[in-house]
Amino acid sequence: MTARRQPVLGILGGGQLARMLALAAAPLGVNTLVVDSAPDACAGQVAPLRVADWTDYAALEKFAAEVDVVTFDFENVPAETAHWLAERVAVFPDPRALAVAQDRLAEKTLFRECGLNTPAFEAVDTRADLDRALANIGAPAILKTRRLGYDGKGQFRIKQLSDADAAWAALGAQANAHGLILEAFVPFERELSVLAVRTRDGDFHIWPLTQNWHTDGVLSLSLAPAQNIDTLQKRAEELAHVLAERLGYVGVFALELFVKDGELLGNEMAPRVHNSGHWTIEGAIASQFENHVRAVLGLPLGDTSARGFSAMFNWIGELPDPAPVFRTVDAHWHDYGKQPRPGRKVGHATVCADSASALAARVGDIARALQREEQAAPALHVLS
Amino acid sequence: MTARRQPVLGILGGGQLARMLALAAAPLGVNTLVVDSAPDACAGQVAPLRVADWTDYAALEKFAAEVDVVTFDFENVPAETAHWLAERVAVFPDPRALAVAQDRLAEKTLFRECGLNTPAFEAVDTRADLDRALANIGAPAILKTRRLGYDGKGQFRIKQLSDADAAWAALGAQANAHGLILEAFVPFERELSVLAVRTRDGDFHIWPLTQNWHTDGVLSLSLAPAQNIDTLQKRAEELAHVLAERLGYVGVFALELFVKDGELLGNEMAPRVHNSGHWTIEGAIASQFENHVRAVLGLPLGDTSARGFSAMFNWIGELPDPAPVFRTVDAHWHDYGKQPRPGRKVGHATVCADSASALAARVGDIARALQREEQAAPALHVLS
Ligand SMILES: Nc1ncnc2c1ncn2[C@@H]1O[C@H](COP(=O)(O)OP(=O)(O)OP(=O)(O)O)[C@@H](O)[C@H]1O
Ligand SMILES: Nc1ncnc2c1ncn2[C@@H]1O[C@H](COP(=O)(O)OP(=O)(O)OP(=O)(O)O)[C@@H](O)[C@H]1O
Repeated sequence: MTARRQPVLGILGGGQLARMLALAAAPLGVNTLVVDSAPDACAGQVAPLRVADWTDYAALEKFAAEVDVVTFDFENVPAETAHWLAERVAVFPDPRALAVAQDRLAEKTLFRECGLNTPAFEAVDTRADLDRALANIGAPAILKTRRLGYDGKGQFRIKQLSDADAAWAALGAQANAHGLILEAFVPFERELSVLAVRTRDGDFHIWPLTQNWHTDGVLSLSLAPAQNIDTLQKRAEELAHVLAERLGYVGVFALELFVKDGELLGNEMAPRVHNSGHWTIEGAIASQFENHVRAVLGLPLGDTSARGFSAMFNWIGELPDPAPVFRTVDAHWHDYGKQPRPGRKVGHATVCADSASALAARVGDIARALQREEQAAPALHVLS
Repeated sequence: MTARRQPVLGILGGGQLARMLALAAAPLGVNTLVVDSAPDACAGQVAPLRVADWTDYAALEKFAAEVDVVTFDFENVPAETAHWLAERVAVFPDPRALAVAQDRLAEKTLFRECGLNTPAFEAVDTRADLDRALANIGAPAILKTRRLGYDGKGQFRIKQLSDADAAWAALGAQANAHGLILEAFVPFERELSVLAVRTRDGDFHIWPLTQNWHTDGVLSLSLAPAQNIDTLQKRAEELAHVLAERLGYVGVFALELFVKDGELLGNEMAPRVHNSGHWTIEGAIASQFENHVRAVLGLPLGDTSARGFSAMFNWIGELPDPAPVFRTVDAHWHDYGKQPRPGRKVGHATVCADSASALAARVGDIARALQREEQAAPALHVLS
């Protein structure tokens, strides 16, 4: 019997995604080491945490020496940091994929090259660009920062052409640093996401499509598998596969999609595990977290089939009373161990069932007990 | 929004049970603090670890101040340590329950008082006791230490009366320190275990019965739910309930049972989560680990129903090649992050399926790929 050394997965960013990755890595015998600038980063409760910022190269040098593979909890790690690390240790996904996903313009351009249609869009660097783009795209439209947006931050909705001044006042100052993009506002029928995973060898799988609902730009509720999707599952799989091959992508990623007139439009790509895939922890045979760990470590993938029907409630700002979730059969509580703060993702709950009607009953019970009828309503509507 | 303080679960002992408890506690927002005398205790990879032994009261005093509830990964924590802690912090299960389970004589006496029959047994403190007990019980019989036995250690099989000398030579030296017990050897039809959980409020549930097979006294394979059990599930539930009430037990415990002539006989009680319940992580709606955490923290219990059929392979000494498990649908790898060592429990794999025949196919595939046909054979026999 020879002594063994366990592989160590390094994660840049120590939020709930890193936390759930670490929890999925442990049973595989994979240890985790997290870097975050915040000493109270919540992944630090379940894995060792190095406190450092993205330009602390002395700390990153030590980190690189301690880990076997590096991955991301956070897609806005500076591209230079990712490239610098990739010269020292295996980094998955590749920093080039990260760079594309960090830039809404590059991302949407790539989507189109891969055959995935998108809302009309134009780059906006100056006030004159904005006017020109608005003339081409028309209203309603959305002005967004090209980089560093998340949870609907860095966005301004232009309802009519005369809102241009207000939009520029809100975001113009960021045009130089981050660039802007104007997108046509899509009156979509629904929002779906596809979670996909690709290994180093090119093995590729997707989970069943997820339907999502946002409130104030933040994910509020997911339902999986999405219902009444006809051929969209197959179409999403093809598109995600083309994209993954094009980027030589390794690990899990999410594509956020709009459905308009029954067609898929690409909204954005998350080069990491994604909030809309949290249901896979209990609702799929292998979760997005387990398969991301497997993929980046060069292990075979687990099965991405759903076990039944799942709904996920996102808890934003602060946690509701957990008791109704604890009391419901096959409902699963996820507390990220964070302090409450307005707009912060502090936890989620996934409710599972073997049938759509059983799921609706469980979701309805929890929603009533928590007075969250409004949050649950869209899923109950689909399930009824 | 008021700041929150997360509850902290203290665990005495930092082996795989503490590790899996900590992994189950995290999503509930419960942090874990582990005490073990070994600095490389494997739970320390997923939770903070204090290195101290059971009589280091200075360290235990600090530990007690840092945690909200104390529980056990290890049932042989000295009774004095458990009692000392219980004067300072909530300890579940109660140290009295621990004391009973630590002593095979007290345990079997309690079983009988609760209506659970046992193999014939007699206390043995001297060589003369052994002769008297053997005359009453007859051969074959097993001489065991009353305390501190595990994984078949501290046992001697007496095949015929003339083995008494050899048995005394092997264990007589421990008669003073730990006491001995002579038990009739039961030619059982099979071994079952029942995993049960009781809350502070007296809410009580059991998981479906598990069938177990041992090799050299160590658990090798489990199958759940046990097949063809007729009324035994109900009988086991009643007995476990009586026992739990009698002890005022809080948390998960296991009863190891023999089936002889279709009747249940009590072998022993484990006052903690148990190896034969590892299948519940994927194979039940709520796992033994999650429900133990819920129970000791005063939360409502999760559902103990099985999701389908599960088989668990125990990995002893060193891990086999994980690839066949990774490649099998709904098969789940558990590496405890330990160094290999003969006889050591270093991991397990649970294989799940919706039908007995699908489970048999998956277990058969893995067994063939790993050349573990012998380990898998008894489950395949039951499933066929
Ligand atoms: N072009 C659009 N047309 C209609 N709705 C849109 C458009 N762009 C964004 N939205 C709405 O706003 C939500 C958030 O937008 P987007 O995904 O661009 O923001 P984000 O800040 O990157 O969010 P996240 O962090 O959730 O990915 C979308 O899910 C959608 O509901
Ligand atoms: N009285 C008995 N008759 C027949 N077989 C027995 C008897 N006692 C023990 N065995 C066999 O030996 C195995 C281990 O015995 P026991 O449970 O007493 O040991 P242990 O060291 O406490 O084990 P563990 O750590 O697995 O609980 C049992 O599971 C059973 O297979």
